[in-house]
Amino acid sequence: MIVKKGCFISIEGTEGVGKSTNVAFIRQFVADKGISLRLTREPGGTPLAEEIRELLLKPREEIVSDDAEILLVFAARAQHVDRVIKPALANGEWILSDRFTDATFAYQGAGRGISWDRIQQLEQYVLADLRPDLTILLDLPVEVGMARVMQRGAPDRFEQEKLAFFDKVRQGYHRRLRAEPDRFALIDATQSLDHVQQQIAQALTEKLGLV
Amino acid sequence: MIVKKGCFISIEGTEGVGKSTNVAFIRQFVADKGISLRLTREPGGTPLAEEIRELLLKPREEIVSDDAEILLVFAARAQHVDRVIKPALANGEWILSDRFTDATFAYQGAGRGISWDRIQQLEQYVLADLRPDLTILLDLPVEVGMARVMQRGAPDRFEQEKLAFFDKVRQGYHRRLRAEPDRFALIDATQSLDHVQQQIAQALTEKLGLV
Repeated sequence: MIVKKGCFISIEGTEGVGKSTNVAFIRQFVADKGISLRLTREPGGTPLAEEIRELLLKPREEIVSDDAEILLVFAARAQHVDRVIKPALANGEWILSDRFTDATFAYQGAGRGISWDRIQQLEQYVLADLRPDLTILLDLPVEVGMARVMQRGAPDRFEQEKLAFFDKVRQGYHRRLRAEPDRFALIDATQSLDHVQQQIAQALTEKLGLV
Repeated sequence: MIVKKGCFISIEGTEGVGKSTNVAFIRQFVADKGISLRLTREPGGTPLAEEIRELLLKPREEIVSDDAEILLVFAARAQHVDRVIKPALANGEWILSDRFTDATFAYQGAGRGISWDRIQQLEQYVLADLRPDLTILLDLPVEVGMARVMQRGAPDRFEQEKLAFFDKVRQGYHRRLRAEPDRFALIDATQSLDHVQQQIAQALTEKLGLV
């Protein structure tokens, strides 16, 4: 099957939810349909945006103001959208981003307490009406995810947050899901990997018209 | 004379206009009135904001999108305002910033062509109604300023711009002056240093009530 229109997929979820494993699965699943999927991530996706990511993730003594944090997130996103996502879609490519704007609503909004309205102002400023065609939300109780993360080595500035923070982040993702249910596929990541990937395949098939 | 209220001064102008020399003069002039003046700069003023400054100034092959550039500028400003300027003013301190938001209107607005309206959206987002009490605008034909800059060594990403760019920046500063004339002191920097500093002293005296 040849799909000519570009397609934008995002994958979201709290720490340790299994994004990397499932990104590899999605790439293979889509490749089996004859489609090459470009992988990218946020914050990041361009050299400048990756440098901004480093600023955001680096543990630091200085207290980072909420406004500075969210403006850095959207600066990286603006560069990523302008230099990578929009050109790819205009070129008919399929692109999968590990996190996108839903993560900002979840982490900076629900997690840090920045108002939904202020995030929407910046979303409107940077994205206008650009949204993923499909957002795969991997959902897991935060205790389970953090136990996995702790095996990975030194935590970054976000991973250092407490469980209560990530529980708010998880609730933020659910709020995004309720606001735009058609765009989302909610995947229960407590299931076996086989079962998770079966559900992801189903979402790709049904929501994006893959056969 | 003891002034208890905090005071926020900014100094602006295109490259090579003599900001550093005159900042030192202002600090001494104000010290002679018994006031300690804290010096800061933009982009920068905190460790994180200085790291953002490095991202902005570093020459790079990647084309930096207008949105990414201006969001980085305001991310640095948000951190600077939140961690330095507002606490200083709340504490009754006098603070002088080498560049502030007028520079964004001049460089990113008039220089890069980002609309005034889009900059005002971010100004409102980050600053609400915070403005300098006095802005000293050093004004010089750009050919004169750039000739000075070229003697300093390797140019940064902004200094690499052409004269036409800086001429637009200069016009942008004049547009800001016309919009908020009461806040500005326009200083003709083609004059002798003595004359320039005499005019700066007069502006400080008259506009800030120093005696």
